[in-house]
Amino acid sequence: MNDKIPYKIYLSEDEIPTQWYNVRADMKNKPAPLINPATGKALGLEDLNPIFCEDLNKQELDNDTKFFDIPEEIQNFYKMYRPSPLVRAYFLEKALGTPAKIYYKFEGNNTSGSHKLNSAVAQAYYAKKQGLKGVTTETGAGQWGTALSMACSYFGLDCRVYMVKCSYEQKPFRREVMRTYGANVTPSPSNTTNVGRKILAEFPDTTGSLGCAISEAVEAAVSMDGYRYVLGSVLNQVLLHQTIIGLETQKALKKYGIKPDMIIGCAGGGSNLGGLVSPFIGEMLRGEAQYRVIAVEPASCPSFTRGKYAYDFCDTGMICPLAKMYTLGSQFMPSPNHAGGLRFHGMSPILSQLYHDGYMEARAVEQSSVFEAAVKFARVEGILPAPESSHAIKVAIDEALKCKETGEEKTIVFGLTGTGYFDLVAYEQFNSKTMTDSIPTDEDIAASLAKLPKL
Amino acid sequence: MNDKIPYKIYLSEDEIPTQWYNVRADMKNKPAPLINPATGKALGLEDLNPIFCEDLNKQELDNDTKFFDIPEEIQNFYKMYRPSPLVRAYFLEKALGTPAKIYYKFEGNNTSGSHKLNSAVAQAYYAKKQGLKGVTTETGAGQWGTALSMACSYFGLDCRVYMVKCSYEQKPFRREVMRTYGANVTPSPSNTTNVGRKILAEFPDTTGSLGCAISEAVEAAVSMDGYRYVLGSVLNQVLLHQTIIGLETQKALKKYGIKPDMIIGCAGGGSNLGGLVSPFIGEMLRGEAQYRVIAVEPASCPSFTRGKYAYDFCDTGMICPLAKMYTLGSQFMPSPNHAGGLRFHGMSPILSQLYHDGYMEARAVEQSSVFEAAVKFARVEGILPAPESSHAIKVAIDEALKCKETGEEKTIVFGLTGTGYFDLVAYEQFNSKTMTDSIPTDEDIAASLAKLPKL
Repeated sequence: MNDKIPYKIYLSEDEIPTQWYNVRADMKNKPAPLINPATGKALGLEDLNPIFCEDLNKQELDNDTKFFDIPEEIQNFYKMYRPSPLVRAYFLEKALGTPAKIYYKFEGNNTSGSHKLNSAVAQAYYAKKQGLKGVTTETGAGQWGTALSMACSYFGLDCRVYMVKCSYEQKPFRREVMRTYGANVTPSPSNTTNVGRKILAEFPDTTGSLGCAISEAVEAAVSMDGYRYVLGSVLNQVLLHQTIIGLETQKALKKYGIKPDMIIGCAGGGSNLGGLVSPFIGEMLRGEAQYRVIAVEPASCPSFTRGKYAYDFCDTGMICPLAKMYTLGSQFMPSPNHAGGLRFHGMSPILSQLYHDGYMEARAVEQSSVFEAAVKFARVEGILPAPESSHAIKVAIDEALKCKETGEEKTIVFGLTGTGYFDLVAYEQFNSKTMTDSIPTDEDIAASLAKLPKL
Repeated sequence: MNDKIPYKIYLSEDEIPTQWYNVRADMKNKPAPLINPATGKALGLEDLNPIFCEDLNKQELDNDTKFFDIPEEIQNFYKMYRPSPLVRAYFLEKALGTPAKIYYKFEGNNTSGSHKLNSAVAQAYYAKKQGLKGVTTETGAGQWGTALSMACSYFGLDCRVYMVKCSYEQKPFRREVMRTYGANVTPSPSNTTNVGRKILAEFPDTTGSLGCAISEAVEAAVSMDGYRYVLGSVLNQVLLHQTIIGLETQKALKKYGIKPDMIIGCAGGGSNLGGLVSPFIGEMLRGEAQYRVIAVEPASCPSFTRGKYAYDFCDTGMICPLAKMYTLGSQFMPSPNHAGGLRFHGMSPILSQLYHDGYMEARAVEQSSVFEAAVKFARVEGILPAPESSHAIKVAIDEALKCKETGEEKTIVFGLTGTGYFDLVAYEQFNSKTMTDSIPTDEDIAASLAKLPKL
């Protein structure tokens, strides 16, 4: 605490980056293209434009442009909640008694409660620019749906969210935030789409799935005039927008001459991890620096550590394009796990390629150890973290404790993606000691991988 | 937006005030002292020390010391979540089309979700300094209990919270945040105290009241070795700690040469309002400046606008000392109202005296108009406000719209005390148009005032 570095490093507003960074431009091995399952051919603009917004599709397919200017209206919106602080975890360091220096980039100080707003505002902006009436999307835990509702409200766009039915019923408060921002929230499966009606006829008691919600949102978008579908993770465009996280982090570190030894992020579909680490991996790709980059995933849904690098469907319903990624198979059903944002069976194609090429390590951690780290963190740093974010906390603490053993003064940076105010059912289970861990067996994963599409 | 003033004015950490300001030192008419109802005499340290912490009692009774040094450990804790931003409401101004310049001091960026942490950490610090084992308190909506849990967890103090039973059952998430911070939360009335057992025997189906929870918390404190009782509002010491809000606001305004015309705050027991406005009223008391200061209270619990300035009990149970304040009578039952933090029948003695002496105006607003303002604000400024805070938003918008009519470029500063993430039942009612207003009749208030204690 007698250090010169403040508890919270805030950039000034005119230091907020005005361009997003496209790591693909620096990658020697580009991520594999999305493929149309019907033709086996790489998707082009003509395939994507009926479903997604045009400018976003250009970003999606562009492997060469290194920087994209952030339009002024998005820059203005960013000023509503950015720059986000880079926090020096003095309190945590002291509690751990570690010589390590720990920093975290905190993205939770906005009503969506997470980093999701960074891409939501960009996608809403381009939808508005294209003259659309509205957008459709799906949401599971609800963070992405909330972020998109806020962005659409700002740009005066209609926002239709298909929310997995069990979440719709179990998380009425998330749903209510979306409604407050004017979004139309439908529990999925619903009778508003063909695919929803079909599933309801077959499984009248289903509580829904993310795969089904995606299918409904896509169908709704293509069947209505002036609507497109938007997605909060996995896609290249999402990682591009999210680089605002890593670029701000880089700038804040540089301002105080801090050189990180390792960068740690939680890994679901890759939106936060990719956004945080891309600018640092860019330095590695250009031979300017060397970092340890650690992706942390739940042991219940371990796509990096136990998945296969192969083409697979992005959705359970197998109507979306194929992506080459680390995957547990699109039919993989993760065991119960509260980190709703980390339950995707696959991983961003960009991050998959980088991991495959050795620019990242990955670690899988169990839920109860994650909540233990979350509570320790909350009590000393004052922020109640989201379960997703707490995966990164867990490994940051592990690494800091290793430094305590070895006496090394390493500098650890991790991404704290959001707050856990809507995850208190999970905290209640942890506090009451009724939380359990469950890890898929090798047979479970092999069975799911056996169903990968044949190309 | 082409202004030189940023969206968010952050002081640097070394600009955070290191002293609290005691407005009583500048008041010609001091607030009336607390009185012992049994003896009719003013309370001294010897009366207060068995119930409250010693250093806090000195602060409570001190009408002369103008500034109190903030102990270093509290300064450090403040850096966990302070300085809080002073936000220029560019988006709201644009949406309203007003020439007024609107600023708000936002106290919601911490896990307690409100300004309550400013006093909680101070009270926990002095309890620890006195060598106590723990503290007891009551909580209604839960913000104060959460803040105190966080502060006690930091200082290693036992924290026992009596939570009004209906809130305990209706707000399980608030309760769970407190448990995550290690607090012991008991629904009140409970069978852990004499007063609780007595009430339960008489009214077995009661869902509790703040008055009863106060009585239980006080009894628990005095009957356990090494415990004292702490309170989150009304008291002079609380207003003292909360002046960190107003002092930071003053400094941030000065940094950019901004002179406010009016300062608006929501009014419950007075903790936020007093903290925000005291430093500005201090300037008025010293003849250095002139401001319009507006207190906003719910029409359902209008102590300033329809209450009487008289000695009254601070609690419904009539076991606490008497305070001279604007009161609706300690037996007043406010009609249903979601702004749980604004349902107290009385008002801080300091603010009561200042209002009585003409340094403040007061306005009462109805719930549905408050939520209308809250949703308007949330959609353009991106923050989902607490119902309590939204009372200030409502009047700030009203004043900004008056400026639109007259063309005046007034500068409006209001206090945004917290976020509404745990108030979504109320938002749901507003969104579903099932929210109702209800205002006490003159007869209701007269009946309650008829029961004021005779001195």
